[in-house]
Amino acid sequence: MSGNTFGTLFTVTTAGESHGPGLVAIVDGCPPGLPLTVADLQHDLDRRKPGTSRHTTQRQEPDEVEILTGVFEGVTTGTPIALLIRNTDQKSKDYSAIKDLFRPAHADYTYHHKYGLRDYRGGGRSSARETSMRVAAGAIAKKFLATKGIRVRGYMSQLGPIEIPFKTWDSVEENAFFCPDPDKVPELEAYMDQLRRDQDSVGARVTVVADGVPPGLGEPIFDRLDAELAYALMSVNAVKGVEIGAGFASVTQRGTEHRDELTPEGFLSNNAGGVLGGISSGQPIVAHLALKPTSSITTPGRSIDVNGQPVDVITKGRHDPCVGIRATPIAEAMMALVLIDHYLRHRAQNADVHVETPVLGQL
Amino acid sequence: MSGNTFGTLFTVTTAGESHGPGLVAIVDGCPPGLPLTVADLQHDLDRRKPGTSRHTTQRQEPDEVEILTGVFEGVTTGTPIALLIRNTDQKSKDYSAIKDLFRPAHADYTYHHKYGLRDYRGGGRSSARETSMRVAAGAIAKKFLATKGIRVRGYMSQLGPIEIPFKTWDSVEENAFFCPDPDKVPELEAYMDQLRRDQDSVGARVTVVADGVPPGLGEPIFDRLDAELAYALMSVNAVKGVEIGAGFASVTQRGTEHRDELTPEGFLSNNAGGVLGGISSGQPIVAHLALKPTSSITTPGRSIDVNGQPVDVITKGRHDPCVGIRATPIAEAMMALVLIDHYLRHRAQNADVHVETPVLGQL
Amino acid sequence: MSGNTFGTLFTVTTAGESHGPGLVAIVDGCPPGLPLTVADLQHDLDRRKPGTSRHTTQRQEPDEVEILTGVFEGVTTGTPIALLIRNTDQKSKDYSAIKDLFRPAHADYTYHHKYGLRDYRGGGRSSARETSMRVAAGAIAKKFLATKGIRVRGYMSQLGPIEIPFKTWDSVEENAFFCPDPDKVPELEAYMDQLRRDQDSVGARVTVVADGVPPGLGEPIFDRLDAELAYALMSVNAVKGVEIGAGFASVTQRGTEHRDELTPEGFLSNNAGGVLGGISSGQPIVAHLALKPTSSITTPGRSIDVNGQPVDVITKGRHDPCVGIRATPIAEAMMALVLIDHYLRHRAQNADVHVETPVLGQL
Amino acid sequence: MSGNTFGTLFTVTTAGESHGPGLVAIVDGCPPGLPLTVADLQHDLDRRKPGTSRHTTQRQEPDEVEILTGVFEGVTTGTPIALLIRNTDQKSKDYSAIKDLFRPAHADYTYHHKYGLRDYRGGGRSSARETSMRVAAGAIAKKFLATKGIRVRGYMSQLGPIEIPFKTWDSVEENAFFCPDPDKVPELEAYMDQLRRDQDSVGARVTVVADGVPPGLGEPIFDRLDAELAYALMSVNAVKGVEIGAGFASVTQRGTEHRDELTPEGFLSNNAGGVLGGISSGQPIVAHLALKPTSSITTPGRSIDVNGQPVDVITKGRHDPCVGIRATPIAEAMMALVLIDHYLRHRAQNADVHVETPVLGQL
Repeated sequence: MSGNTFGTLFTVTTAGESHGPGLVAIVDGCPPGLPLTVADLQHDLDRRKPGTSRHTTQRQEPDEVEILTGVFEGVTTGTPIALLIRNTDQKSKDYSAIKDLFRPAHADYTYHHKYGLRDYRGGGRSSARETSMRVAAGAIAKKFLATKGIRVRGYMSQLGPIEIPFKTWDSVEENAFFCPDPDKVPELEAYMDQLRRDQDSVGARVTVVADGVPPGLGEPIFDRLDAELAYALMSVNAVKGVEIGAGFASVTQRGTEHRDELTPEGFLSNNAGGVLGGISSGQPIVAHLALKPTSSITTPGRSIDVNGQPVDVITKGRHDPCVGIRATPIAEAMMALVLIDHYLRHRAQNADVHVETPVLGQL
Repeated sequence: MSGNTFGTLFTVTTAGESHGPGLVAIVDGCPPGLPLTVADLQHDLDRRKPGTSRHTTQRQEPDEVEILTGVFEGVTTGTPIALLIRNTDQKSKDYSAIKDLFRPAHADYTYHHKYGLRDYRGGGRSSARETSMRVAAGAIAKKFLATKGIRVRGYMSQLGPIEIPFKTWDSVEENAFFCPDPDKVPELEAYMDQLRRDQDSVGARVTVVADGVPPGLGEPIFDRLDAELAYALMSVNAVKGVEIGAGFASVTQRGTEHRDELTPEGFLSNNAGGVLGGISSGQPIVAHLALKPTSSITTPGRSIDVNGQPVDVITKGRHDPCVGIRATPIAEAMMALVLIDHYLRHRAQNADVHVETPVLGQL
Repeated sequence: MSGNTFGTLFTVTTAGESHGPGLVAIVDGCPPGLPLTVADLQHDLDRRKPGTSRHTTQRQEPDEVEILTGVFEGVTTGTPIALLIRNTDQKSKDYSAIKDLFRPAHADYTYHHKYGLRDYRGGGRSSARETSMRVAAGAIAKKFLATKGIRVRGYMSQLGPIEIPFKTWDSVEENAFFCPDPDKVPELEAYMDQLRRDQDSVGARVTVVADGVPPGLGEPIFDRLDAELAYALMSVNAVKGVEIGAGFASVTQRGTEHRDELTPEGFLSNNAGGVLGGISSGQPIVAHLALKPTSSITTPGRSIDVNGQPVDVITKGRHDPCVGIRATPIAEAMMALVLIDHYLRHRAQNADVHVETPVLGQL
Repeated sequence: MSGNTFGTLFTVTTAGESHGPGLVAIVDGCPPGLPLTVADLQHDLDRRKPGTSRHTTQRQEPDEVEILTGVFEGVTTGTPIALLIRNTDQKSKDYSAIKDLFRPAHADYTYHHKYGLRDYRGGGRSSARETSMRVAAGAIAKKFLATKGIRVRGYMSQLGPIEIPFKTWDSVEENAFFCPDPDKVPELEAYMDQLRRDQDSVGARVTVVADGVPPGLGEPIFDRLDAELAYALMSVNAVKGVEIGAGFASVTQRGTEHRDELTPEGFLSNNAGGVLGGISSGQPIVAHLALKPTSSITTPGRSIDVNGQPVDVITKGRHDPCVGIRATPIAEAMMALVLIDHYLRHRAQNADVHVETPVLGQL
């Protein structure tokens, strides 16, 4: 495949460019009988959409989604669900200046060499706009998972140099940063205001957590739950690193420290991030991702044009100074897509399995 | 699928347990006409195999591979290549004590809940022994990639607390650690000797690099080159984190620092790790992985048995005090498998593309 | 997957019900640089659409397709192509009477048991209306194949009891039946007029042929070219049989008769239908399919309702008395989709193969 | 993929040539807890193996299979099952004469053009010997299906010109032809004896039936149960046609005749062959396949060599005069593989579905 389909049993195929007629997704494999309306999708789309605070791009994209197929009388039918978002705020003229040159850290150069031509308007297919369809599809997955007691949530755990230790889920939806500590928000705002004055951008770290995942999800060897999460999260624009549980901190850990001991009351720690041998342990699934700073900044940079000649590039247009700010709903969506897929795969193979051993409580 | 197949066009399907009759792989999609002998595979198998120094497990596994199919008169035929390694040094009695309990940080608990039963001898399917087949298959991939000028190499970049800055490829094969700095080796040896005396284990960081990769490999959106690398590397036993290029360092970088500027002479840096928009840029592909400390240590740990009762676990048997030491050939194999798959996918779709723009020199 | 995606490298994912908002397809893997406009798709859609003669359903479905993504400045970009056809002539009230019963020979009973609920309007997802998206996607495949000298064409080879030996391609597009013999058309028309008076329906046989296919396409063992054709053609609504070349006539053939001898001037016959060992031979690819009579007829039939009670069913609405009449463009589309997929797969694996032996002329 | 893997959730990947070291299969996705021994596989392997009567090839291939992985203490573990059959009776010298020429109706010419080289010994990968692995894998599927009340059986329904109406399952295993009518056996034997004297070969027709299949298996649109059966059966060596239920007889049927009416007691006929809209109806699944006459006959035929020069070919060696005779166990295996795959896929998506409507009795 050409890589626009995600998943094995619950599949999401997306299409669409930043400045074409619209974005399309087909979600296949959703179990029948799930109540589903546009409102279920719109909630997460609105969490991702730009222009909701001064810290994100000021583009106006209402991102209103239409369900074209697969839902009948308010309920999924088991047939594929097609989604459509029309592009509305397309200022294509903004981009004509970059038609024949390669913006540093963008996909311009690589698309050019891969395909020989490209839709240069707003990055075309490489635009983060594509992630709106991931969020919409992820909302369907979340709704199904909720019927099984599984909840996926995320938060920003670091903005540039500012580390944000987790404090409370209650705060996350109360600010523009998905920050889990209300006391940190003023510092983040001040940092972002200075960043815009500097005409620069910065990276971020996002953490996603799934609660209520039963033990047994994930396939050992290649399609491990953690391997699929790494694939899913690394496929999000601007992501440069993925950790499960202790992640890179494992490098300096001793075995006596890292191993999560078990007691009849539950695990005593969660360095594993809820995955052992590629299979969920019943603990919360925890993943962290690193997002690079936005490539589109107004500070000029050196590059070349399609003839190989040197040029200076200033990326105008309306851009996020920190793409990580809007990444939390996307990361949640990707984790939800991985979990639903493995939920279905697991019951395909193991529906007849009965285990006497009690499931441990979550830490 | 149940997740034992890797790849889309160049696929590797593996089977086998630590203490069963043997390990099997079927490699499908290898182009015809590639000279291939057992010696091509044995070289990397020997780099991975245990017992080559006092710093790894003392199990004796000759890991002698047999090519059963797909090669005729010393050349691949284009039909699937089946590989077999018989298990020889199986001390199954070592493991009977752990039959009914769950070793912390192992897959015992999760396999038990997923399948309802498990081959407990040496971890069964969850044993790192399975990776020998990845290495054998990766050696085929490497051989093909070499005919296209692509070379994949790895090294240990950190052992526990000891960071190992890259110095020279010449050193890597000259010591038991795949250490790229000969002056660091005594420090590593001393650290490992103490670790064994402590009856403990430690994590490590491994770096893999591919040179000579042309621009254009990788599919945007889900099957990005970096996303597939994350999947491939995270699927290796004990890996808890994957970075591409600057990785988690991107979090604190500014856009002016992170973006790799282009000049007619080439890119000026490689924070991207050779991947832009999910597609190779022509720069070296650089990935880092974090490996957790070995779970099997002789220091007792708390756990439960299959009835949910508390037990103390001491993992006897012969184990690596740092699984990261033998991980370098495995990581190379996984990167090679990703690259050959995307090489084939790229030419399937884009064989007719002609680009005038010169390819930049590698940094 | 839930089976709404066709192909491996050139994939078509479809969605949509007969009486929902519309039909959607995402075509992934189309090589970049192919000129493509709506007109390219509309031609085949018009060949399939109903209401073009008195011998097909009188529903008016303009089947106007919109290209939403993947085409820029009149040329494919290598990114996925999303297609949309809005449903316009939805007389949903026609169907409320059948909401709680199972029409014989329809999918009502099986959808009910599979999903527990169904969109009963016009058959919902099981309607042949879905095939319009196959035709649109097939038109893209045909356009690409044409650039490689490959042409796919079909014709009706039997209508009920009337066999139609092939005479000339020139006739096929000149009548409502895709009949390759202009002298047979009056007989077909008279037969159909009587059939409507009988309030009955009848089956048909359609033949599809691809010319210009180079030797080497198809993967031995499971994904044989003929096996994929059988899968593709049997997946079309109402198809109950598929033959390659001599097909069921092979049962009574002797080996001396069946085997197609080779001479330097070419093959002497084509019982193989252009496929040997699952791989194209360079001869025309020939497939035949059997289509069952339309299930929706106004003659009453016995059935049961959702409570298991006996009922009499009369299918009102507007239906084709012979679904085979409109099947030719669908069959062409499916063969084209198989061929483009194998064309791309072949060059992925075998682009480096050079053969001295001359390719034989086609028979 | 290169087409050596069958299935989506229950996958079978095979490798191996007629005269190489052996044949290998990896069966992935088998549910855990299924009792499985070599004897379970050997039974069907023995039904397929050559040399059991004077009417098949006199090659001696004991086809003894070894289970290398995935079974522990006599029970499947849920991990992949690797199978190995060593080739023993390899008379490679028989084949050196055909090294540089193309046997008519064989895959020699197409392999040559696809791969540029080929293992010419006994047809290499294109040999029907490969089907032994299908049979072994199919036996695993059959064993699982039996635990769900599903049974797959086949029989020869026509040998050359001799039609064999079904009489009784009791006869099928009592003769060398899988003939369901004991009174027909002498006629078949006489026909075969004459055929060998004629130095010729002949085609056959085989029928496969699955009983006990619940309604709901199969995915509408592309991965229909009947489409997957067509793919599966057409992928068997020498098959040139596949029918479901009434098959090509549907062409001349009227709608009033073809449609299978429903009553509270069950369906009144089974023209559908147990599949409606691509989904099983609860009736027996019925498929027919046409097998061409053996291509290897001792009567000389015209062909060309690798230089394009005309040659006369006599295929020596030991061949079946009717490959259809040994095809029944293979066809059963392929149907079993399709059914288990769809059984698992169905419960992945639809495990939560509850239907009140009673399932009809089978016809």
